[in-house]
Formats: sequence, structure tokens, C-alpha cells
Amino acid sequence: MSARQLFERLQKLMQVPTAWSYSYGLEAWYQRVYCPASAIAAREFGAKLLAGMAHRTFITDENGQCLDDLVGVADELPTTQAAFVRRLKLSFDMARQLDPEFVERKEGIRTRSEAVWKVARAESNFKMFAPLLTEMINITREEAIIRGADANNPSTFYPVLFNLYEPGMDIALVEAMLDDAFAFTRDLLERVRASGVTPRTDFLEWTYDPIALKDLCPDVAKVVGFDFDRGGFDLTTHPFCVRLGVNDVRITGRITNGLAGAFFGVAHEAGHAIYDQNLPDYMVTTWVEAMRYSLGVHESQSRGTENGNCRSRPFWEFYYPKLQTRFPRLQEVSLDEFVAGINTARPSFIRVEADEATYNVHTRARFRVERGFIAGDIVVDDIPEAFNQEIFDGLGIRPPNDAQGCLQDIHWGGGLIGYFPTYSIGNFMGPQVVEQFRQDVPDWETHLRNGDFGSYNAWMCEHVHQRGMVDTAAELVERITGKPLSTDAWKRRIMSGVRPVYGLN
Amino acid sequence: MSARQLFERLQKLMQVPTAWSYSYGLEAWYQRVYCPASAIAAREFGAKLLAGMAHRTFITDENGQCLDDLVGVADELPTTQAAFVRRLKLSFDMARQLDPEFVERKEGIRTRSEAVWKVARAESNFKMFAPLLTEMINITREEAIIRGADANNPSTFYPVLFNLYEPGMDIALVEAMLDDAFAFTRDLLERVRASGVTPRTDFLEWTYDPIALKDLCPDVAKVVGFDFDRGGFDLTTHPFCVRLGVNDVRITGRITNGLAGAFFGVAHEAGHAIYDQNLPDYMVTTWVEAMRYSLGVHESQSRGTENGNCRSRPFWEFYYPKLQTRFPRLQEVSLDEFVAGINTARPSFIRVEADEATYNVHTRARFRVERGFIAGDIVVDDIPEAFNQEIFDGLGIRPPNDAQGCLQDIHWGGGLIGYFPTYSIGNFMGPQVVEQFRQDVPDWETHLRNGDFGSYNAWMCEHVHQRGMVDTAAELVERITGKPLSTDAWKRRIMSGVRPVYGLN
Repeated sequence: MSARQLFERLQKLMQVPTAWSYSYGLEAWYQRVYCPASAIAAREFGAKLLAGMAHRTFITDENGQCLDDLVGVADELPTTQAAFVRRLKLSFDMARQLDPEFVERKEGIRTRSEAVWKVARAESNFKMFAPLLTEMINITREEAIIRGADANNPSTFYPVLFNLYEPGMDIALVEAMLDDAFAFTRDLLERVRASGVTPRTDFLEWTYDPIALKDLCPDVAKVVGFDFDRGGFDLTTHPFCVRLGVNDVRITGRITNGLAGAFFGVAHEAGHAIYDQNLPDYMVTTWVEAMRYSLGVHESQSRGTENGNCRSRPFWEFYYPKLQTRFPRLQEVSLDEFVAGINTARPSFIRVEADEATYNVHTRARFRVERGFIAGDIVVDDIPEAFNQEIFDGLGIRPPNDAQGCLQDIHWGGGLIGYFPTYSIGNFMGPQVVEQFRQDVPDWETHLRNGDFGSYNAWMCEHVHQRGMVDTAAELVERITGKPLSTDAWKRRIMSGVRPVYGLN
Repeated sequence: MSARQLFERLQKLMQVPTAWSYSYGLEAWYQRVYCPASAIAAREFGAKLLAGMAHRTFITDENGQCLDDLVGVADELPTTQAAFVRRLKLSFDMARQLDPEFVERKEGIRTRSEAVWKVARAESNFKMFAPLLTEMINITREEAIIRGADANNPSTFYPVLFNLYEPGMDIALVEAMLDDAFAFTRDLLERVRASGVTPRTDFLEWTYDPIALKDLCPDVAKVVGFDFDRGGFDLTTHPFCVRLGVNDVRITGRITNGLAGAFFGVAHEAGHAIYDQNLPDYMVTTWVEAMRYSLGVHESQSRGTENGNCRSRPFWEFYYPKLQTRFPRLQEVSLDEFVAGINTARPSFIRVEADEATYNVHTRARFRVERGFIAGDIVVDDIPEAFNQEIFDGLGIRPPNDAQGCLQDIHWGGGLIGYFPTYSIGNFMGPQVVEQFRQDVPDWETHLRNGDFGSYNAWMCEHVHQRGMVDTAAELVERITGKPLSTDAWKRRIMSGVRPVYGLN
């Protein structure tokens, strides 16, 4: 068979695990979005069946043989397709490390653990969550060993887990960037304090009409370029983005965390979704959960939309009058005040709503704590305090309770341990590719001022989305900018935002 | 094994098909509620896998053996459990008539057919829908033959199909009731015309704020007794109620058909849902799609809430001031005018929003047309006209387009052919059991006047819901009232509603 024919055969074979993967995705989405709290536990059995089928039908010998054959002749395919095939082969090999029973068992823990997390977070009760988190940590350590970590050397566990979410990247490189950003942020916060300037941010704490906030969310998504004909928006506890099928990428948002929480949460998830909506068709019909490469690249797109575009002054020249119409009390806040208020460097407790300057302190805290508990250096009962201490070291504030501390994020309960560093990869990569875009499209400011996201999304589509899932973050940055992945562009971006606000030089 | 042990074994065995059945239910719900139109077609493959698994894992020899053993000793079980076991055995035998490939094939047609119906209805374009409807009719005829109808005698097809939705009931009995109701309604409409009275109904045509309508829906559900801790509400094209799992019964409503469409649609579906929420636990953990016995009984509960309670004057003494607060323009409509306006006998086009007096003309039209096309007496292209003629014969008005004619209902596209008569069974049964309730609980008016649905729901729970899925409609009416199922109570109820409105005697 020719490479072309083999590729078609692969597509046909992958129809089954792809369908199961989407069915499983629907189940997980439903649990997180619409399922009543009292009904989640009983879904465990079914969620396990679905996760098991998605896994079982992917790791078949027939699929493996077809992939092997295809990798052998991949050079005959168009380059992106060839790269995609190699990536899929990598996913296959990683999936095959786990037997279906293990996947089902972990899925069972995930269902129960997320359900308990939801309540524990609402009640700020870490003790309630601890037993499930312990189960999740144990099975994750087991997984690391199955995947090749040294059972006798717990410090080898974490890199294996991180590799699941960012294959091909060295965690030491990420750690160095995180430490660098940490030092930069501490220094910046010191200079901000010394400046004596306190920009007006009271309007971010105001209570806004929930119905108007709810109405705002889909409008934000639409403005930044999310295609509602091929997706949808729902309210949830923790914002996320997920593909549920062909022509179907869903985002979620929340209105429980004020105006900024609603606006930037949706802008962020819409950035993810636009990436997904621009993937080549054959990736979407050959879909397995593990294929979300690279998470760092994905995050660069959400951060690019959220921060690169939606915290910029030109954008708000366009959108602020509309926002004031929705929320008339904002008439008393000037455009300058508003833009300054969303470009601060201020310690805060909630990661997803942290400003750009302080954001990496949160992910670094998560990274250090999760690496600690996976290695056994931090016991479960000590997690809240270990986390709070990390936040205090970086930001000088201490979470007053666990809901605003280690319980705020769904990931650990959801079994995503080793995932957090990818957020910072995206956080650093985002400004790098946005800088390149602005060099390539000098009219970008005019476009934003007109509320036109077309040139931005088209550029990202060409350079990032259509290369979706085939490059590592480091490879893609290098390919696009000719420079290595680093914190430099991120620092420039932070300074350009906060310099005018605090009068720094 | 004792009957008790066998029952436990059955529960354990049924865990698998139950989980698949709920997964399939989630898929179908998603397609109908949140899935973007452009994404439905691609879900066909996955929907077929799920429907296939739900069927395949139900009809196993092991399940059959366990059921046979259990039926043999069912008398040792509590009576309701014993009856449930016999019903499940009946479902099993009916399911076993179809092989999984047939189920998958029909599910494929259903997915495509509903997707096309949605667009065809929006565009009022029957021609667009005709090819899919033809496919659905063909496979349904095939199904009737598999299930024992005489291939050489197409008039035997329909009773076999009706039996799927209302096992144990003779379609001839239902037809006689439908004809009786038809004559009654024609006569009543004549008397109404002769009365010269035209009650005020303009407020039902007013345009109301969609956000306020949307906000109204869950409040209505809550007031009538729907438990939001074990279910949820969503907007959709066609209102329905579905169980998606343990502690999870969802209802849907629409705000595109005015105030009455929103209010009574939700009250109706909430009536279904309260039934479902009151089922014994073992029924909910032993769930297969075919178990919705009896649909007529189910409908009696939705009609009881919608009409028996929510069109009564005492209820509106409680709720009308609240409604006026939500929709201030209603200040200009008096309580008397409002109650009269929702208790009319007026020809109209949309079945689910028809008044109680004219409702059965719609189901009778559906019944006669579907029986006709299944037998081959009506060809697909003639369906719109045949349907319109039935409506004209009964109501003296002719649907101006197919969206308000044969395309208004999802059922045929969804493969539910033979289902419509069950609506009228519920329509007749509802008033019969409500009459009995009012005899047993003479304070019912005071309760309604206080917005207290507790006594009503508790009575229905005891007499109907806890007997859920084990009796036929005829059996249950007889058990509860000591009288056979008939149109008598329905006629009394209609007259008590319209008599004061039109000054009839």
C-alpha cells in the first residue's frame, strides 16, 4: 500500500477509538458542567466503561501494525501529516504502556475524586478531599513506575509524568524558566511597592448583575473569533475547553468570580478553542485523548488571546464602550483607569485570574508541591501548608483558606499531576509568537482597534494551529521566531503593560 | 438461590447494560440540546456504537437465564418487585427480537433523520425531510415484521409497533376512545362558536422578554415539585424529559413559543420528571431504554401537573401575582381573564401547546396518518396533506405550512412510530386519577391556593410512581379508581374548565 492508502486505512481504523474517545469526552464534560452533584458518583461505572473502550480500541495490534507501516513510509506524506503520524505513534506507544484495567481503575478514582473535590472546594474542606487525593497520588505513582520510572528512586517519577503532557521537553529547562520568572516577579513586586502607585481596581471587585455577566460570556467568545457554528459555551465551576467531536469544540466559563473572572476566563478558553477549531480535518477524525500536543503550545494560544489581545489598549478602545453599555456603572471608570486596572502586578490568590506578572508564581508553586508529593517528600496532610508557603514566598500573601489555596484547581483531583508546568510554557511562548505576529503584521493595532481579530487568528492558524499537535513548544517557537523558547518576550510584555501603570523605567 | 439473592444477582448483571443505556441517553440528549447543528451528523458513528452496546449487553444469555430463574420464583418477592421482574422479562424478550446490527442501523438513521428534521422544520421544508423519513418508515416496517407482524399483511404492522410503547393494550380500544373524543370535541367547538363568546387571549400572543421567559422555566419546575438536586433544566427545540442516570432526571423547555409554550411546556415535562424522580431505587439501577412503562401512565402524570394543577384557578390565585411581577404588562390582564384564557376550546396548530379540549384531535391525526403510512396506504409525499386534512376535519383549520403541520413533532424522525396514541391514553387517564386524588384529599384546593404541591405529589407517588413501570394504564386506572379507563373524566374536566368561560350549560 502507498503511504496515502495507508493513511486512509489508519483513518478508517481510528474511527472506532475516536468515537469512543469523544463519547468519553462527552461523559467527562457532562460531569463537569450539567450533572447534578448528587448524580456524579453513580456515573463512575459508566465512565470507566467508556474510558476503557476508548483505550482498548486504540491499543489494538491492528492499529499498531498500521502505524508501524505508516511510520516506515511517512516521508512520502506531506510534512505535517508525516509529523502527525509520528506523534500518533508516540501516543500509541505511551497508551500501550497501560492495560485497560488500569485505565478503568484510574478513571473510577477520577470520577469520585472530582465529585468530592467539587464539594470540598465549595466548603473549603481539605480534609474531605485528602483520602481521594491520596488514592489519586498512589495510582499516579504506580503509573509512573509502569511507564518506566525507577520504583526505588521516587525522584524519577515526576519527569515521567511531565513527559505525558509535554513529550520531548526537559523539565529542568522549564524549572529554570520558572525560577527565573519567580525572581523577576519578586523583584517587580518590590519595585511596584516602592513606586507608591496603587492603580484603581475597585471596579474589579464590584458586584455585577449575574444575568448580564452570563450574557457577556458568549459575546466575548464571538468577538475574539470563536465559531459558534462549530462549538458552544456553558457555565461551570472551573473554566475549560474540550473537543467533543467533529465541528464541536466547547468552552466553559464562570460568573462567580466577578467581571474579570468572566471576561478573561472566556477570552482564555476561546483562545484554546480557536486553536482547536483550526486543526486540520484529519487530526479531528483521528482523535485520541492523549493527542493534545503540545499543552504548552495550546496554552500559548489561550494566553495570546487573553493577554496579548484582550489586555491591550487598542482592543479596549473598541470594546470598552460596549462593556459600559452592558454595565452602566462603568461609566464612572475611564478607559485609562480600566486598562491600567487590568494590567497590574498585584499578588492575588486565584491562579486563573492572576495577572500576567504574578501568574507563574502560582504554577511554580503547584509544580513544586506536586513534584514533592509524588516523590513522597510532602505528605498529603501537609499539602495545604506547603502550597500556601510557596505562594507566600513568591507573593508575600498567604491564602486565608484552602478554597483559595490548594483546593482552587481541579487538576490533582482529575488525575492531571505533572500538568501545571505546561501553563507556564504557554505563558512564556505566548508573548514570543505574539511579538513575531506583530512584526509580520504591523497594522495589528489598527485591527484590534476595529475589533478585528481576523489577521491575528489567520496568522496563528497558519503558523501554529495548522502545525497543531505535531511540534513541541520549543520546536515551534524556534521554527516561528528563529529563537529558543525563553522568558525574554514574556518579561518585555509584562514591562510594557505595567511600566506606564506604575511609572517604572 | 433465593428470590432475594437472584434479584441481587440481576441487579449486578444489569449494571452493565444500565450504564450503557445511560451513556446512550446522554448522547441522544446532547444531540437534542447542546450539540451544534453542524456536528450532529458526525456523531452518528458513536451513537451507533453506544446504542449497540446498550442492546448487546442487555440481551445476553446470562441475563436471560437469570431473568427466567427469577420469574420462576417471583411470587416470593414483594408484589411490586415481582411485577417489575415480569416487566423486565417482557422487555428482554422484546429486545431479543432485534439483533445488535439492526439496532445500530436504526440508530444511524435516527441520528441523521433527527438532524435533518431539525433543519427541515426550521425551514418548513418537508421535501428536505422526506428521504430520511422514507428510510425510517422502511426500517420500521422491517422491524414490525421481525417482531412478528405478517409481511404479507401490512395492516398487521401498526399494532406490533404500538405494542412497543404500550404493551398489553389493544389499539382498537384506544382508537375507540380517540374517535369518541374527536366527536366530543367537534361538538364542543360547535357549541363554543354558537355561544358567541370570545375570551380574551391576546396576552398569550404577546412578545415577552426572552431572558425573563428563560428565568421563568426553572421556577415553574420548582414550584410544581421538580427536585433540582436530582435533575436539571435546559432549553431545546422540542421539550422532553429524560433520565440520564441515578439522581438525574432532566427536563427541557423552549421560549420560542410564547408565554404559554414556556410555562405549560415546563409544567408538563416536570410532571413526567416527578414521576421518574419517585421511582423505586431498584428500577433506576436496573434501567433499559425499553422500560418506560407505561407511556400512557407517564403521560397521565405530565398532564395531571400541566392541566389538573396548573390550569386550575386555585393555583393561579397563588402564582398569578408572581407571574405579573415577572411580566409587568400582565398587570392589565385580570386573574379571571387569565384563567379563562388558558381554559379555552380553540382550534390551534401546535399539538404540545393545544388546549385540553382540542389536544386529542392532534394525536388522532398523527395516529391515523402513521398507521396509514406504515401500512402503505399513504405514500410519503402525501403525508403533509393527509395530516393537514385530519386537522381540518377535526378543528376546521388548515396548517398554513409544514412547520406548523406534520413537521412540528420530532417523533417520526426519531423513529417513534406508534407512539402518539399513548399521549391520549395519558390525556384520558390523567383526569381519572386526578379526580380520585381530589376525592381522597378534599383540601386539594387550599393546598394549590398556597402553592403547595406536596399532597398531590405524595398521593401520586404512592398510587402511581411507586407502581411505576409495572402496570399498564388500564390496569392502573382500574386499581386506583375501580373503574375502567375511559374518556368520561376527561370530558367532565373539559366541561368544568370551558363551561364558565363560554357560558355553556
